[in-house]
Amino acid sequence: MKNTYGNNLTLTLFGESHGKAIGAVLDGIAAGIAVDEAFINSQLSKRRAADEISTARKEADEVKILSGVFNGHTTGTPICFVIENNDTKSKDYSDTYGKARPGHADYTAFVKYGGNEDFRGGGHFSGRITAPIVAAGALVISALRNKGIYIGTHIKECAGVPDRAFSDLYADVTAVNEKSFAVLDENKGEKMRENILKAKEEGDSVGGILETAVIGIPAGAGEPWFDSVESMLSHGLFSIPAVKGVEFGAGFAFADMKGSEANDSFVANDRNITTVTNNNGGINGGITNGMPILFSCVVKPTPSIVKPQQTVDFIKGENVTLSVKGRHDPCIVHRARVVVDSIAALTLADLLVGRYGTDYLKD
Amino acid sequence: MKNTYGNNLTLTLFGESHGKAIGAVLDGIAAGIAVDEAFINSQLSKRRAADEISTARKEADEVKILSGVFNGHTTGTPICFVIENNDTKSKDYSDTYGKARPGHADYTAFVKYGGNEDFRGGGHFSGRITAPIVAAGALVISALRNKGIYIGTHIKECAGVPDRAFSDLYADVTAVNEKSFAVLDENKGEKMRENILKAKEEGDSVGGILETAVIGIPAGAGEPWFDSVESMLSHGLFSIPAVKGVEFGAGFAFADMKGSEANDSFVANDRNITTVTNNNGGINGGITNGMPILFSCVVKPTPSIVKPQQTVDFIKGENVTLSVKGRHDPCIVHRARVVVDSIAALTLADLLVGRYGTDYLKD
Amino acid sequence: MKNTYGNNLTLTLFGESHGKAIGAVLDGIAAGIAVDEAFINSQLSKRRAADEISTARKEADEVKILSGVFNGHTTGTPICFVIENNDTKSKDYSDTYGKARPGHADYTAFVKYGGNEDFRGGGHFSGRITAPIVAAGALVISALRNKGIYIGTHIKECAGVPDRAFSDLYADVTAVNEKSFAVLDENKGEKMRENILKAKEEGDSVGGILETAVIGIPAGAGEPWFDSVESMLSHGLFSIPAVKGVEFGAGFAFADMKGSEANDSFVANDRNITTVTNNNGGINGGITNGMPILFSCVVKPTPSIVKPQQTVDFIKGENVTLSVKGRHDPCIVHRARVVVDSIAALTLADLLVGRYGTDYLKD
Amino acid sequence: MKNTYGNNLTLTLFGESHGKAIGAVLDGIAAGIAVDEAFINSQLSKRRAADEISTARKEADEVKILSGVFNGHTTGTPICFVIENNDTKSKDYSDTYGKARPGHADYTAFVKYGGNEDFRGGGHFSGRITAPIVAAGALVISALRNKGIYIGTHIKECAGVPDRAFSDLYADVTAVNEKSFAVLDENKGEKMRENILKAKEEGDSVGGILETAVIGIPAGAGEPWFDSVESMLSHGLFSIPAVKGVEFGAGFAFADMKGSEANDSFVANDRNITTVTNNNGGINGGITNGMPILFSCVVKPTPSIVKPQQTVDFIKGENVTLSVKGRHDPCIVHRARVVVDSIAALTLADLLVGRYGTDYLKD
Repeated sequence: MKNTYGNNLTLTLFGESHGKAIGAVLDGIAAGIAVDEAFINSQLSKRRAADEISTARKEADEVKILSGVFNGHTTGTPICFVIENNDTKSKDYSDTYGKARPGHADYTAFVKYGGNEDFRGGGHFSGRITAPIVAAGALVISALRNKGIYIGTHIKECAGVPDRAFSDLYADVTAVNEKSFAVLDENKGEKMRENILKAKEEGDSVGGILETAVIGIPAGAGEPWFDSVESMLSHGLFSIPAVKGVEFGAGFAFADMKGSEANDSFVANDRNITTVTNNNGGINGGITNGMPILFSCVVKPTPSIVKPQQTVDFIKGENVTLSVKGRHDPCIVHRARVVVDSIAALTLADLLVGRYGTDYLKD
Repeated sequence: MKNTYGNNLTLTLFGESHGKAIGAVLDGIAAGIAVDEAFINSQLSKRRAADEISTARKEADEVKILSGVFNGHTTGTPICFVIENNDTKSKDYSDTYGKARPGHADYTAFVKYGGNEDFRGGGHFSGRITAPIVAAGALVISALRNKGIYIGTHIKECAGVPDRAFSDLYADVTAVNEKSFAVLDENKGEKMRENILKAKEEGDSVGGILETAVIGIPAGAGEPWFDSVESMLSHGLFSIPAVKGVEFGAGFAFADMKGSEANDSFVANDRNITTVTNNNGGINGGITNGMPILFSCVVKPTPSIVKPQQTVDFIKGENVTLSVKGRHDPCIVHRARVVVDSIAALTLADLLVGRYGTDYLKD
Repeated sequence: MKNTYGNNLTLTLFGESHGKAIGAVLDGIAAGIAVDEAFINSQLSKRRAADEISTARKEADEVKILSGVFNGHTTGTPICFVIENNDTKSKDYSDTYGKARPGHADYTAFVKYGGNEDFRGGGHFSGRITAPIVAAGALVISALRNKGIYIGTHIKECAGVPDRAFSDLYADVTAVNEKSFAVLDENKGEKMRENILKAKEEGDSVGGILETAVIGIPAGAGEPWFDSVESMLSHGLFSIPAVKGVEFGAGFAFADMKGSEANDSFVANDRNITTVTNNNGGINGGITNGMPILFSCVVKPTPSIVKPQQTVDFIKGENVTLSVKGRHDPCIVHRARVVVDSIAALTLADLLVGRYGTDYLKD
Repeated sequence: MKNTYGNNLTLTLFGESHGKAIGAVLDGIAAGIAVDEAFINSQLSKRRAADEISTARKEADEVKILSGVFNGHTTGTPICFVIENNDTKSKDYSDTYGKARPGHADYTAFVKYGGNEDFRGGGHFSGRITAPIVAAGALVISALRNKGIYIGTHIKECAGVPDRAFSDLYADVTAVNEKSFAVLDENKGEKMRENILKAKEEGDSVGGILETAVIGIPAGAGEPWFDSVESMLSHGLFSIPAVKGVEFGAGFAFADMKGSEANDSFVANDRNITTVTNNNGGINGGITNGMPILFSCVVKPTPSIVKPQQTVDFIKGENVTLSVKGRHDPCIVHRARVVVDSIAALTLADLLVGRYGTDYLKD
């Protein structure tokens, strides 16, 4: 389905970084959900470039809702979110066409679209296209909160600096959702920012790992095979630019565990069944077990760097040296987290709507 | 779509571990592809339990093809693969119903299906259901080979023992595909098997990591957003039981890299464009760049262990102690690799058929 | 999706007329539905050739359920229905390959599959492939009945003879469901059968129209645009071989009506809202309004006729004369009605499951 | 998928009649197709109200393309078409809320969306939402023309007046595509318009039948079962408001034919295989045979009429009398034909892209 995501709750994405507008159509959302525009804007502000550790491109990211909302509530019909592009400096990019930026999609887009692609600022591949995902995701995050389902992501590691681990999940999730730089330990966050700035000064960039918790999800969501919770979430998460790895619960650490360490013992308290540990990240056999869903995504270092790189001019078929100009981020980990939250919300809401019906998200 | 996978080339799965039969329907495959039953059987034998490091359950796994093949070639209509269950000892399981095996889907299945699930041997959640995936995958692997596309997986790490890294990819892929225990370094493989046996003696189990290479895939396959190559592959890979993490190229190691280290420089030789390194695993912006696709999956330790575990009886709502009886594997990493190969083949063939049309897989 | 039908409740079809077996996989059905094998067989017997107005091919159509049923109830996982082919006389067909039977898919299959198609008895295009649709449909019809939803089809017209119109819908639906030749007026049925036999004696065939009523469907099912109830039903109905027209309510008669005649006035009785007439067949704006759904399908005359016909040998590229040998039906209208019922059940159940969730069909 | 149509070439629809804007996202279209904005506007003008036989609502229907077009050509990424609503007189409608207009979706929308629907002017159910279908369809119609595939629709019957039948298909299709009122016989067209005006004067409305021909489509498109050409086309056609019947080739007239009359004899001329008649409308076994595709749709009389009608106020639960005010069409048959052409283009292009790959539509 290319640019459409989801089965029962679907998101269709459109737009290019330097075109007229970017946007998305959210379909399958229940009627009667209050649309909190302030919350949508606050989520967008978390994604937007904020200060010296981010790109100098400043976009207001004013979202227009063209359809599907009436009297402040969802109508049950498709909601089209549109964000116009204003601060576009296409001339920054025009002389670079043909010169493949390493780590970027310039060359693959050329092969796929035969030279018809809008190459300016990465075009349809730009990280900017995540803004409408965040706008739509905000609406779904609101609706899930009304059902007692909370999503929060922290920067588990960035620029070589680890954050502390999640401990009291509800408190930690609440806390990070208030922050623009989502760390649990502010001292670690300060160190991360220092390292990001240092990389920037070197004309370089850094990556990191985001860890997400979803609390309050009912047991029984997901499917044994191709629509396992892990399958569905990873499908969405790997469509976020720069995400190159996804793991659930203990993830890659399972490789060095014994079964007796890895298994999460169940315990019953007055018919309330939980697990003692949560190595499986709240998912057994592809289906939620009622424990928090836990997953991590690795975000590779921003490929746009000032440092000169060897590459090719794929139009001329020549080897060239390239220093990526324009306004770029030395790190996008902190900006990506709200995209991760949004994809998690869209995916889980889709599974819940499939299981419980269209009106599930309505209060 | 629950048990149906793929967009243009689809696989629909059915069956329970101790039911009459398990199977799959492959649809969208080009007409006129020669069906090599010997190769299908050889792939199934790689998945099947083989010796003392695997379960004592012995299944012939004789595949019947009910449809879609005529005169030894595909007809272009759906191919139904059926494998009857013969060596079922249901009484091994009957007294355990209600007692949730930690790490298994017993409890989540009960919540989802309300006690109607076929619980015997894990039912529809059993790893045995991967056999028809392997049968269908074998057909697609054959077809891809005819297009010059080769898939191979080795055990990157198992029971704490690392294999050597891929070096000469074509030779390594060819070599592992001849082996029943897929390591590049036989000495490391011997050590892995020792550790697996040791865990078995302790009534315990081990996990590991599988690393896969796909060579010969043309540049330009995949989509920028929700059908990125990573999204599509991970969707399928995470539906394999016990896979809890997937990473592409450098994967989680990207977290500690600088952009200048992470980016893969392009180089042109007579208009043939390649990259110097392959940290991105052959994928830029969700689209293949013509370099080998590289990814790894972590396989958690088999949850069925003889060691006593604390758990609950979800029927009675009581805490109980459980020692999992029956015939189980102390390790499934080596058996999972051919499932990974099959999912990779189905997924990439689906993307290629979408891009180049139904007849692409035909010679 | 080619051979997979539905969004939340899906049916995947496989098999060829003279292959080993035909079958279907039903997925997305709620757990805990009692499986009434006697009813499945009774539905299959309505589809099967019964007497001198049908083909001489006699198939027991014994359905095996390979998966998804445990202790007589659905498990919630895919149900694979398989019917083996026994009474196959492939030699009847072998000398006709290349000679396109007019009105059949021989030539189009050849173009599509390039000569790899299983041409025996129409292969995958055979009307015989509807048997597994009927088996799966029977299960869904049972489940809908438990929700108070009843489906019935009568032969509105056949061989030039009209049946009487539906009058007391509940009584009429109940009555036709007991009959093997589904007419409301037995005298008209007798006349139809006479005309069918007359056509048979002439080496010819006849067609007709089936009219279906669905009673008890709740208001609010269906979608305004591409998943309108009409869109969904017609999608399935037009996949039944020989159906070449579908109309809802007044259908083509709307062309000669005025708006004031065509509109169905609403009337309220103690907040129970109904319509006075039902020209719109229970559907307004693509969505059920709570009145019975009414639709008709035209079934073209069986294309297999003994009378000599001009056609081509597409292998040799020559014009030839053909008299279709083998065992054929002079009429399939009466056999198609249970296929129509099954498609209606699958389609409406899919819409209801999408709206109300997976467990809707469970009692 | 609710508001998303198609498998490989998809259209996602959004908008309400009196909201900010209506629009659609077209995805899966090949890169490099020239975008002819003049042709898009000319197609929209055919759909738009033109004179006294149509509504008094005048909309410029200025299409903005927000994405997916660069340097006048498609980029291969999603194209978002947006049409702003300008001439909205919402007060015309506000006092009618709760009073179900017979034949309209007011009541079913209320049941489905629970009173949250944007009821103004029919909201998301309005025929106005077909405008973006026409805009997207125009682009696809252009691309199909470059492949030698031509689509044309004439008013087969309107207000009791039949047009002459198609004769020289290529000439007739070319001719009707130049006309705003698509009849083959202008005298019949004049009589239709008189009858429409007469109905308007009576405060009433009329319906009709549209007949469509598609010439130049290659043999071999479509699937035997659920994606038959008839299934796919009817799915789209029945999503057009007011379409209540669809037939292919001889359609409902098959009911009174013998097999010997109904079958289309094949004839070979130098390996070019055609049929002598075309009762099957170019489709055998769900697959195109290379002959023109022929189908008809019945369009019911516009439900909005000035004549007083009995109905209910579903808010109050009372029976009321209603005379539909506002600006309405006494006939929409002539306006619907370009929507039919657009749906046909989208559907067939989707099938062709599925069969031949993404680049098929590119010159």
